[in-house]
Amino acid sequence: MGGGAAAPSALEKARELGARIAREGWVLLNGGRNAGIMAASARGAREAGGLVIGILPDDHAKQASPHVTIPILTGMGSARNWINVLSCHVVVACPGGPGTISEIALALKAGRRVILMDMDTRGIFERYEAAGMLERADTPDGVIAAIKAGGGAGRKS
Amino acid sequence: MGGGAAAPSALEKARELGARIAREGWVLLNGGRNAGIMAASARGAREAGGLVIGILPDDHAKQASPHVTIPILTGMGSARNWINVLSCHVVVACPGGPGTISEIALALKAGRRVILMDMDTRGIFERYEAAGMLERADTPDGVIAAIKAGGGAGRKS
Amino acid sequence: MGGGAAAPSALEKARELGARIAREGWVLLNGGRNAGIMAASARGAREAGGLVIGILPDDHAKQASPHVTIPILTGMGSARNWINVLSCHVVVACPGGPGTISEIALALKAGRRVILMDMDTRGIFERYEAAGMLERADTPDGVIAAIKAGGGAGRKS
Amino acid sequence: MGGGAAAPSALEKARELGARIAREGWVLLNGGRNAGIMAASARGAREAGGLVIGILPDDHAKQASPHVTIPILTGMGSARNWINVLSCHVVVACPGGPGTISEIALALKAGRRVILMDMDTRGIFERYEAAGMLERADTPDGVIAAIKAGGGAGRKS
Repeated sequence: MGGGAAAPSALEKARELGARIAREGWVLLNGGRNAGIMAASARGAREAGGLVIGILPDDHAKQASPHVTIPILTGMGSARNWINVLSCHVVVACPGGPGTISEIALALKAGRRVILMDMDTRGIFERYEAAGMLERADTPDGVIAAIKAGGGAGRKS
Repeated sequence: MGGGAAAPSALEKARELGARIAREGWVLLNGGRNAGIMAASARGAREAGGLVIGILPDDHAKQASPHVTIPILTGMGSARNWINVLSCHVVVACPGGPGTISEIALALKAGRRVILMDMDTRGIFERYEAAGMLERADTPDGVIAAIKAGGGAGRKS
Repeated sequence: MGGGAAAPSALEKARELGARIAREGWVLLNGGRNAGIMAASARGAREAGGLVIGILPDDHAKQASPHVTIPILTGMGSARNWINVLSCHVVVACPGGPGTISEIALALKAGRRVILMDMDTRGIFERYEAAGMLERADTPDGVIAAIKAGGGAGRKS
Repeated sequence: MGGGAAAPSALEKARELGARIAREGWVLLNGGRNAGIMAASARGAREAGGLVIGILPDDHAKQASPHVTIPILTGMGSARNWINVLSCHVVVACPGGPGTISEIALALKAGRRVILMDMDTRGIFERYEAAGMLERADTPDGVIAAIKAGGGAGRKS
């Protein structure tokens, strides 16, 4: 998860993370739009031969990233953030705005593990950090290692 | 789409339809539960090497068919029927109860083509039949032919 | 519940039904749009001093009927039909198209009583008619009598 | 909006805020459950003669506060947080956990004004504070004054 707009360095790391997820044989699920972190991670995963599920807020696929393998059209706007986090084994949060913060919060509420990669939550979720539900990793490699240390990311694609 | 409970002959046709969809290289999307038409079509598609997306009403995967490749957990009950129909290029309705009827109705409202395989809608949607939005096919072969005649079922898996 | 477009006689009966519901002290809940049966029933209820909840498909109130007291903005399109039926004690279906049929179907799935006023469902739900879940009434008076015979419509406004 | 569990002082302030909202003739909309800030604010509003809309995550009303006038059953879990914020003119956030944080975030994403009463967001939304979308108030009186200064809270009940 991450912003529809992001700095070039964040996009590059998201792309690399997508590629690393694909190489593990895991499915990448994100918000599906052709913008920012979503588009970059989808591109990385697809270029590495992976499967990308995009849970779109729209009722059409016009704004889907071309790198999304399967666009799921919810027509529900940001209510789809709940589906995003429920459907993931692990949520990785990249830099983003209120949409991304809502996804971190909803993921913790749903009992999903969250890994922050360069996303600063200012300690607002410190209770979850103390409980080991919220972790940090600085690099795509670090994210993959953290996912594996926590038991993996579920079914292979 | 189709009922969580169905006659053996309907289940067998659903399984065969799933297999035929997979052999075309299309993605099967259904309601994902381990019951009735959903489970039978998922099984057919997976046994034929296909990809199955299950849009579950639940917030957990305990009731997902083991033949669903990617369970999408909506936690929204039957509100997820709207996602089912929006996300499909063509909706095939097998025998079912009010859930299936709601999906046919929502699909027509969303402008999706609907093909009925042994599902009797008593002419309630006759305006859509006249407009060519609602068709009938007696067999999995007939369904596949109708989908192709109408322009196919979108992206290959 | 009923169509966004309807014949003048259906609109007049919907307006009268809204007024009758309000005079019973019941809350009218409908789809909230400024069109067809929704607008007519809302107008009737408000002119009789009632409370009208409109569950809108939109994420804004621009298309809400001015007679809706409380617009609930779902931003979920027709997924909101599930909320409509869950939130009602009794669903009254007036003439309408696939949206209305989806609501009847979802209501029966949710275990809600449904009363049809001039809405012909062609016997597609006959199992529910036999079980007493689906009834018919020809007039607003008949609808009110059926609701009362079945135990009323819940909390007073 | 606020937590399902909260300190006695926060509950007392929420109750008072509910009463103040009702006395202004505004409608109180919250998450509807019989717990924490939701229950306290609903109680305050109802005891002051106000109207309370509860947007419940459940598909039944068993866990609704008895002080909710109109329970809206969404059956959508935390996806209903999106409806909560869309349907409000102004969102007041009381102390709470990730559910409340998700509502603040979604409200800002939807362009709704947010007023924090004793809820510390650690500056995570500072861009919105700078833009005047996110404000703070220490007391129910302060909240009401801030709402009025910003143009009020929409339709009277």
